[in-house]
Parts: sequence; structure tokens; C-alpha cells
Amino acid sequence: MVQFVDVRHMRDWITSEGIETRIMGIARYIERDFIRWEKFDKTARIAAHSPAGVIELMPTSDGELYGFKYVNGHPSNPARGYQTVTAFGVLSDVDTGYPVLVSEMTLLTALRTAATSVVAARALARPESSVMAIIGAGSQSDFQALGFRAGMGITHLRVWDTDPEAVDRLVANLGPLGFDIVRATSAADAVAGADIVTTCTADKAYATIVTEDMVEPGMHFNAIGGDCPGKTELDAGILTRASIFVEFPPQTRIEGEIQQLADDHPVTELWTVLAGRSIGRTSATEVTVFDSVGFAIEDFSALRYVRDTTAGTKFAQDIDLIADPSDPKDLFSQVVPQQVARAH
Amino acid sequence: MVQFVDVRHMRDWITSEGIETRIMGIARYIERDFIRWEKFDKTARIAAHSPAGVIELMPTSDGELYGFKYVNGHPSNPARGYQTVTAFGVLSDVDTGYPVLVSEMTLLTALRTAATSVVAARALARPESSVMAIIGAGSQSDFQALGFRAGMGITHLRVWDTDPEAVDRLVANLGPLGFDIVRATSAADAVAGADIVTTCTADKAYATIVTEDMVEPGMHFNAIGGDCPGKTELDAGILTRASIFVEFPPQTRIEGEIQQLADDHPVTELWTVLAGRSIGRTSATEVTVFDSVGFAIEDFSALRYVRDTTAGTKFAQDIDLIADPSDPKDLFSQVVPQQVARAH
Repeated sequence: MVQFVDVRHMRDWITSEGIETRIMGIARYIERDFIRWEKFDKTARIAAHSPAGVIELMPTSDGELYGFKYVNGHPSNPARGYQTVTAFGVLSDVDTGYPVLVSEMTLLTALRTAATSVVAARALARPESSVMAIIGAGSQSDFQALGFRAGMGITHLRVWDTDPEAVDRLVANLGPLGFDIVRATSAADAVAGADIVTTCTADKAYATIVTEDMVEPGMHFNAIGGDCPGKTELDAGILTRASIFVEFPPQTRIEGEIQQLADDHPVTELWTVLAGRSIGRTSATEVTVFDSVGFAIEDFSALRYVRDTTAGTKFAQDIDLIADPSDPKDLFSQVVPQQVARAH
Repeated sequence: MVQFVDVRHMRDWITSEGIETRIMGIARYIERDFIRWEKFDKTARIAAHSPAGVIELMPTSDGELYGFKYVNGHPSNPARGYQTVTAFGVLSDVDTGYPVLVSEMTLLTALRTAATSVVAARALARPESSVMAIIGAGSQSDFQALGFRAGMGITHLRVWDTDPEAVDRLVANLGPLGFDIVRATSAADAVAGADIVTTCTADKAYATIVTEDMVEPGMHFNAIGGDCPGKTELDAGILTRASIFVEFPPQTRIEGEIQQLADDHPVTELWTVLAGRSIGRTSATEVTVFDSVGFAIEDFSALRYVRDTTAGTKFAQDIDLIADPSDPKDLFSQVVPQQVARAH
């Protein structure tokens, strides 16, 4: 039997401890896995592109567990009632090859993306940061806000979205949870006075959501939305004046903000900062960019956390995914007609 | 909700119509998909190797549906009570990116491998073939036998395995189903007089299960077991005198029997024979080899057949794999604490 966490159980698992606790739990697993980065098999995601969007498989392994996520990205989905991004994931035992966990990951990806942003910001943003701009008030924005409150103590938000209803939604969701939210009149207005700028827009385009003139010394950019070829959010001028931190360079150079730069533009791998091998922020005036595209190890960490905290609880079911004959060399006995089986 | 076929339902679905009917159903889907081969996104499988074995993802898409199979290969598993190969698979709607089917594929892979062998043999073996040698009496052998009876009318088997108990098992399984089975005393004895030679051994080694001196004019080799780097079954001398047919050359040159040959050794893609673009067997004395490694399109075809024949029946369940908020831009509403949700 395989441990299975479906949507209802994922939701119950998240709300049982609260979103912030779950984001921070995932963040701890991500930090631990990033510190042992070199133990992992790393590969860029395997993408199947179509006119409507992309379907990706994101595998990785630490030699003991193997994990992969299935995730789609379909920007035109919301207009017809579907979500842009949905996902599920699997963990397996490397030694036997048998799956051990199947989990919904649409909700979990929202949490792990926020958790990764928090892990990066704790290493890169100024510790006294207190105001965060959010550009793009879609599905990911609420999770970012809660993650940054839990991990950085941020309660002041300056929010901008080209769609006022998206901002209404964010205010309705987060206002009751104790956030102090300013509805900005433009991206520039949102960024003005912010310590951290989180960009999480959905349009698949070379967009310039934030321009160089908006940047103030010491800002940390948490760039979430630029995550596939042809989809960026930051002015290249911001990138060239900033110190850039990335997950897995071979993937980020294709998918991230830095697709706008030369292939050899210097970047620092986030894991090396967490492992104490590189320096993160060097001064209070340095501009830092976490050019996040989402990497398989983060999903692996999130799945490990789900597995560890749902095993043997009411938050997991068993599903019978793998035929398991008593004689492993006799799969046929599983499907032999009953009268013949009896005659044996 | 996602259509889900677990082990029990897969078993019931197979036995409801019988193994032979299901193999031939899958064979029809494979033939149809191979004929429209050029419509598919094709990529070699993505493998994660470890000392114990391999875990692979095998994706493909025809532009309307996307499918992938998760499959492991762990040769030392049976010795500790696990199966060498287990699998599950997924189909998705390319237009929305949403999964539409999750299915067990350990049993289904056994059927689709037999179905693929039958598709190839109907195109390549002499039509009057009546005797099949089976070298390697493991899990796949029974399915091969039933497939070749259903698709080629073969009822005479000559079986060899280094493990006599494996042959006992095969005889116990297939004898009651009406096969005429000769227990061969060696691989050479099994091959002697056979029209078709099916090799399906499990050892991961450059093995020479069949040597050139055993070959008789007109034989068709159905080489199943040589399916990963370092794992072959046929003497290179057989390959150089035979006409070789493969699934997807970039994958087969790495994984198949032809890894023993030069990278540019001529091979024919099976789909081109089915589509009438190449000639299969050219004479009754030609030696043909189907160097089968298993390709993603075959799994895709099998999953399509399962989907079509289990939708809305007792053979499928629904699982809640994908969080689906009523407002697709408001994933957060799925996990907001209940008292806050009520306050909205």
C-alpha cells in the first residue's frame, strides 16, 4: 500500500497546524536539503510544451529517496474556470524502486514556493525588513505574505495588481488575519518604501513589472513569476546592478529573470549561502535578487515533510497502486482466471 | 476528480474480459498510435540510476493527451520479496494540463509489453509460425505466451530458464490454459525448431542467452530483456546477420541489443512498417529481430485503452488529486481557517 494524501486530507493537514506553521516546517526541510545539495541528483525539469501551456516532470533523488512532481502551467486556464498551476507528487524508496507516497501538490506547491522565498529572504534580505511590496495578487500572493510574516515578521504589505478584483481578494483574505495592507496605485507606488519586493505575476511575457528607477538601495527582490522561457518580470537594469542568487543555474539561465542576461553573468547558488560557502548580502545598501524558478529539491523537501507528518495519521490514506504478488516472479497469478487459480 | 484504476480494479478489469482480449485491445491501440507516430512528442526516458536499480519516467504526448509512466527496474528485488518491475501511469489533458487518469501499471505493463511484441511479430514473423521458444520464464513470459496465442495462434512453447522452478511455475500457469509446453534442456534446445524466439531474462549483464549457431533461417527474435545499458541477451553475431527493427532509435541504441553495434548500424523503425512506409520481412529465410526496450507511446496507448474501457464503469474510482477552488485565482480560500472563511 502507498501513503496517499488527497486534496481534502492536504487541506485538513494544513489547517490543523495553520498555514504559517506548515510553511515554516517546509522551510526547515528545504534548508536542510539545500545544505546537503551535493548529495542530490539534479536535472532541469522535463517540459512538454503546447500552445495552451506546459506540463512538466521535476525529478530528483538524494540516493535514499526519489521524488518527482507533475506540474502544469496554463496561463489562460483561469479565464475558463481552471487553475493556472496544478500539481501532484510522488516519493519512492530508491533501494526497492517502490513508491511510498502520492500527494496532491497544488496546495503544497503554493506552500513550498512561499517557503523557498522565505529561506532565501532570511539569507539575503536585510534582517530589519518590515515592509513588503507584492506585485501580482494571484494565488501565490497570500502564501507569500503569510510565509514572510512567519519567517521575517513582515506585517506591512503594499499590493499592486492590474486587476483591482485580485487586490480585493487579497485584502479580503489577509485583512482579517492581521496584515496592514496598502492598496498601491501602481507598481512604482507599491515598491516605494518597501524593503522586500515580491513579484508573482502570471502573464507569460517578457514583462517589465519593476523598472530600474523604482529600486532603492538595500532592497531584496523575491522574483517568483519569471519562471519559464519568455516569462520575466524585472528590468534587466535591475539585474545588472544587483547580486543575483539562484536555485540551479542550468535551469534558471533558461527559465529565470537571468534569461535576459549573458550566459556567463555571475550568479550565486542559494545553497552555497545556506551551507556557509558563499556570502549572501554584504552590505545594507546592496540590492539582492532571488531569481526563483522553483526547483525539484524544494518539492522533494515538501514531500518529505508531508510524508513524515502524515504517516500513520488521519491525514493520509492507503491506496493500492502497486500489484504485489506473494511470489514476486509470478505476476501472472494476480490475473489468472479464478477457476484456474483454484485448480493449482 | 481524477479517474483512478488501482490494483484490484485493474485485476478485475483484466479478468472480466480475459488476458488475451486485453492484450489484443492494447495491441490495437498501439498499432493505431504507431501509425500516427509523427504526431507524438518523443523523448528517451529519464532515468535515475542507483546501485540497486533504476527509476524512470517515460513521458509522451500526441498534442491532445499527455501521458507518462513511472517504472522501476531492480534486478535484486525478487530475492527479498519485491518485484523487479513495478509501475504506475498518468494521462492528462494537454489543453488544461489537468490529470484525467491515474492507473496502476505493474500489471498493465506486463500486458502492453506482450501487446507490443505481438504487434511487431505480426508485422515481422513468418505468418505460419507455430512454435515459440521462451528463454527466461519470469513474470513476463506468461503474458508473452498468451499474447502470441491471441495474436499469432501460437500454442506450442519450448521453454528454458536457468531456474527450474521458474519453468515449473510457467508450466503450472499455462498448462491448464491449453498450451503444449516442452521443457527444454538448454537455451539451444529451446530454440531448436522454433519459429519465434522470445528472450525475456532479467539479469542485468552483457549476457549471451542466444548464440549465433542456434539461429535457423526465417526465425523471428522477440528480444524483450535487453532493455538498459549493460543488459543484453543476443550474440552480436545474430544482430549483424539479421534485419533489426526498433521502437525509438535514440533510446534503443543506448538500451537495446544494438548497444553492442556501431552507432550507425542500420535499423528500421517498427512504426514505419506498420504505416506502410518500410518493408518488414522480405523473405521466408530472413532472420528478423525486434529489439524491444519499451517505449513511452506503448504505455500511452495502454493508458488510453484503460481510460476508454473503464470510464464510468465499476473498474474505476474517483480520487481527489487536484485542488479545485471555485475561484481559480483564489487557492488560498481552500486552506483559510474556517472561522475566517465564514467572516468573508
